[in-house]
Amino acid sequence: MTPHATPGRHILADFRGVDAGLLADAQALERELLGAAEAAGARVLGAHFHHFGEGAGVTGVVMLSESHISVHSWPEHRFAALDIFMCGAARPELALERLRAALAPDTVRVTTVDRG
Amino acid sequence: MTPHATPGRHILADFRGVDAGLLADAQALERELLGAAEAAGARVLGAHFHHFGEGAGVTGVVMLSESHISVHSWPEHRFAALDIFMCGAARPELALERLRAALAPDTVRVTTVDRG
Repeated sequence: MTPHATPGRHILADFRGVDAGLLADAQALERELLGAAEAAGARVLGAHFHHFGEGAGVTGVVMLSESHISVHSWPEHRFAALDIFMCGAARPELALERLRAALAPDTVRVTTVDRG
Repeated sequence: MTPHATPGRHILADFRGVDAGLLADAQALERELLGAAEAAGARVLGAHFHHFGEGAGVTGVVMLSESHISVHSWPEHRFAALDIFMCGAARPELALERLRAALAPDTVRVTTVDRG
């Protein structure tokens, strides 16, 4: 098996036009990222979220056996940068669908990079 | 300021041909990622590393005020997937240089994505 066979897919999703209140709510974002991990069939190792203060953004990472999901939010821009990086049998596109449904962005820009 | 002005740059770096012992050493990888954050001028919020067991890989994230650095390693493939996502004045390319010097991969494939 060569290194190229490492089956990692990394989805970078820029969500614009998201509700600012949601983007400033660390608990809600943690809940949604955990839901996305579940939707993808990934196993959660831990979740670490940091809130930059009242009305400010959130930085959060859900660590997975299959890699990670992260979010960085800017409520003042109604913008969130999501990463969904998964290896093995987990299905990152299902996590993206779940997050899109939960955060209801006006627009989404997706970049997918095969890793390995 | 439009969402497009959010100044985030995300570097995905696939390191191949790294020493397997280093890729199985969670403490060493944590030290190197913290060093990379310092080199970039970023502020560390926390570091979370998980070791999958003797000889197995590591999943780690350094959370930053400016976003994050993550590593996922496969010692059996001498492969590591690094992400360096930074906003503001921090300089992710300096973190990449530091990690390249520390991990000494045979080859590096870099994808850079502007976020926001």
